[in-house]
Amino acid sequence: MMGGDFAPLEAVKGLRLYLSEKADAVSLFLFGDKGQLTSLLAEHGIHSKQIQIIHAPEVIGMHEHPTKALKEKQQSSIAVGFYWLATGKIDAFISAGNTGAMLVGAMFSIKVIDGILRPAIASIIPKENGKTGVLLDVGLNADCKPENLSQFAVLGSLYAQYILGIEKPRIGLLNVGEEEGKGNLLAQASYPLLKQNSQLNFSGNIEGRDILLDRVDVMVCEGFTGNVVLKMAESIYDITKAKEIEHEFLDRFNFEYYGGTPVLGVAKPVIIGHGISQEKAFKNMIAVAVKMIETGLLTKIKASFTGHPNA
Amino acid sequence: MMGGDFAPLEAVKGLRLYLSEKADAVSLFLFGDKGQLTSLLAEHGIHSKQIQIIHAPEVIGMHEHPTKALKEKQQSSIAVGFYWLATGKIDAFISAGNTGAMLVGAMFSIKVIDGILRPAIASIIPKENGKTGVLLDVGLNADCKPENLSQFAVLGSLYAQYILGIEKPRIGLLNVGEEEGKGNLLAQASYPLLKQNSQLNFSGNIEGRDILLDRVDVMVCEGFTGNVVLKMAESIYDITKAKEIEHEFLDRFNFEYYGGTPVLGVAKPVIIGHGISQEKAFKNMIAVAVKMIETGLLTKIKASFTGHPNA
Repeated sequence: MMGGDFAPLEAVKGLRLYLSEKADAVSLFLFGDKGQLTSLLAEHGIHSKQIQIIHAPEVIGMHEHPTKALKEKQQSSIAVGFYWLATGKIDAFISAGNTGAMLVGAMFSIKVIDGILRPAIASIIPKENGKTGVLLDVGLNADCKPENLSQFAVLGSLYAQYILGIEKPRIGLLNVGEEEGKGNLLAQASYPLLKQNSQLNFSGNIEGRDILLDRVDVMVCEGFTGNVVLKMAESIYDITKAKEIEHEFLDRFNFEYYGGTPVLGVAKPVIIGHGISQEKAFKNMIAVAVKMIETGLLTKIKASFTGHPNA
Repeated sequence: MMGGDFAPLEAVKGLRLYLSEKADAVSLFLFGDKGQLTSLLAEHGIHSKQIQIIHAPEVIGMHEHPTKALKEKQQSSIAVGFYWLATGKIDAFISAGNTGAMLVGAMFSIKVIDGILRPAIASIIPKENGKTGVLLDVGLNADCKPENLSQFAVLGSLYAQYILGIEKPRIGLLNVGEEEGKGNLLAQASYPLLKQNSQLNFSGNIEGRDILLDRVDVMVCEGFTGNVVLKMAESIYDITKAKEIEHEFLDRFNFEYYGGTPVLGVAKPVIIGHGISQEKAFKNMIAVAVKMIETGLLTKIKASFTGHPNA
């Protein structure tokens, strides 16, 4: 509750929005300052029995060093949240707080799934025809090996299938040309791995011009290019809003619609919100976390990487 | 004249547009089918004494293999044009034809400037405040070394200074975070080279969200990320046009405004046009080529890389 530029107010408002729209039998555990949260909940008329506050008096600032802060502030909402997730007291953890601390917590408290070399973070990308795609990695791995990209494709495919409800998601390798053999050394070496992976519905290379088109459902790249693409897409929203260029298509570049960035490849659902998340983003992050639990996405991912059919 | 999807008609129209707007003492040599061009020029009322047609009966198709086509079709407009450029009969060469053939021609007929490890291709990127920036490399070098990026920065800086008229252009390294030390191995290793290069006004890292903002004038990256960014930017124009989202800012994503992509680092001015170039793009390519000649950009570049002051 204490993470993000508008914490805890927007988190509380997002919670209220979620409860007003959904009637799931979900238990919501709020990590943060108990006094502050209790009065904010009362102020916003939130009295749901689904809610329980877990006192976490410390806060990790947005610019603190992730590893150091997590170690020193064991009573922070992020540290306590990960402890609850690691010990099985909660099934998913969400925060719009310090991204580095969220990643370190996810990697070291929750652990990477057996068989996965590197987890990735995924982002939803709007398509011009109204559909949505998944882009990954968008920043966790600035340097990658071909095997990483092949695994990201599997993670993205399962996410698209179970969370976005896309049957047999089409996978594209983000590249600088359409033909096999194009690209930098990484893309050239990744193509055959994607092509021969029987878990994937591989559609070949896509180019920058295809990112916003409905050519494929899952777009795979290393975290450097993915991060640049994502931030550029986000800036299009900011710029067009500032210029009052109004259109439904441009509205869909508002990251708040997509409910944060899941960390794919760690053993439990972890969702990282944008620092500037507001009400709607918090509501959507809860919805995505619930869907990750309900669809058993993590079980599907584990099964996929151990080679066992869906356990 | 024979290059591009709408050749030679749009090239002829661009020529007419250029002549109607400019009164430079420029000599224009048109490479292509003499019969076809003679009647097209007459049809469009172009009788300028500045124009001379050089017969080149062969055409390299847009999908032909560049090296093979250049070798086999020595009477193609691209091959003849490069021969004229290499032998000093013309001072700059422009084509919207087969991009690969243009690059091969530039690298092997014209040669790379002494001291330059790899040439790059640069693109103009519109800034939200009405200014323009330069992004390079946008596709010639999918894999780069830090030394390449440092040289691209110098090439981009000189281009911004002499062609765009920007005093002391601000240079940014495209990266995934603002602080020094962020990024993939290439960006991490490139940062200190850019920082210590006394020819550069280095502003540090920029992120994807800064590409369309007026943070820096020259944005440097390897040709993989640059190509993805450029093609994504171009797609924004296509998509918003198709959706009839009208705004002056979006109009500026129309590549036709910017007159093609200069190949920077080769010994003479070479400009490659987009395959779908029309009238306006051809006119602007001529204007950029003239500016490259008039400002002595190539002399400045050569001086910069040999260490001698502007010769």
